Amino acid sequence: MRKIEHIGIAVHDIEASNKVFTKIFGKESYKSESVETESVITSFFQVGESKIELVAATNQNSPIAKYFTKNREGMHHIAFDVQDIKAEMKRLQSEGIRTLNDQPKQGADNKLICFLHPKDTNGVLIELCQEIGR
Amino acid sequence: MRKIEHIGIAVHDIEASNKVFTKIFGKESYKSESVETESVITSFFQVGESKIELVAATNQNSPIAKYFTKNREGMHHIAFDVQDIKAEMKRLQSEGIRTLNDQPKQGADNKLICFLHPKDTNGVLIELCQEIGR
Repeated sequence: MRKIEHIGIAVHDIEASNKVFTKIFGKESYKSESVETESVITSFFQVGESKIELVAATNQNSPIAKYFTKNREGMHHIAFDVQDIKAEMKRLQSEGIRTLNDQPKQGADNKLICFLHPKDTNGVLIELCQEIGR
Repeated sequence: MRKIEHIGIAVHDIEASNKVFTKIFGKESYKSESVETESVITSFFQVGESKIELVAATNQNSPIAKYFTKNREGMHHIAFDVQDIKAEMKRLQSEGIRTLNDQPKQGADNKLICFLHPKDTNGVLIELCQEIGR
């Protein structure tokens, strides 16, 4: 794991939260992106080598909508940049850490992604990210 | 805000969690530190320019012990590195974001710190950090 790629923050209203984080960072979101397969809309702020990703549900089937049935707004996941996501998944599985998918899937921001099982990671939802095309 | 200085993860048992995160990162914690004023013990892992800080309570008066009366293990706060913490506190206050202290206080890892009010930051507990002596 080479760096924190991003921190995901679950929000109800992406526009309202964009205004809050624009105040916090003193600059505006540089990108917004919808991920149809996850039914989410995202918004990104750059801080050093990492990003803050605001993420809101676009319908009730979204994992973020399900998250809000039990949780409040706040930090949702932490994503680490990896060079070779398949190798990293295999290494973690060999350490007894379950992955939520057998194969990487397409995520936001031109990434292959895979989440780890939070029961195996001290309650922290961890995402592995590999940039596509490198 | 220049980078993510660290992500704080609240844990019950620092030794057990050190083992979990040693597996996740494929390397051991490089430092452990007690902060008497907060009644916590911390453990640090480096990832890129940022750190993961595991934090456990050392007694029932600790803010982390209080956190666990309402929350489970997981991501607790996100800390951003700032050049001038007093100027940044003033800037955020002028944007209507409350700080939890009027003055910066001494934190772990040789830092001056100040937390922002999570009601003003979309439910995210945000810490400002300035390294002492620069």
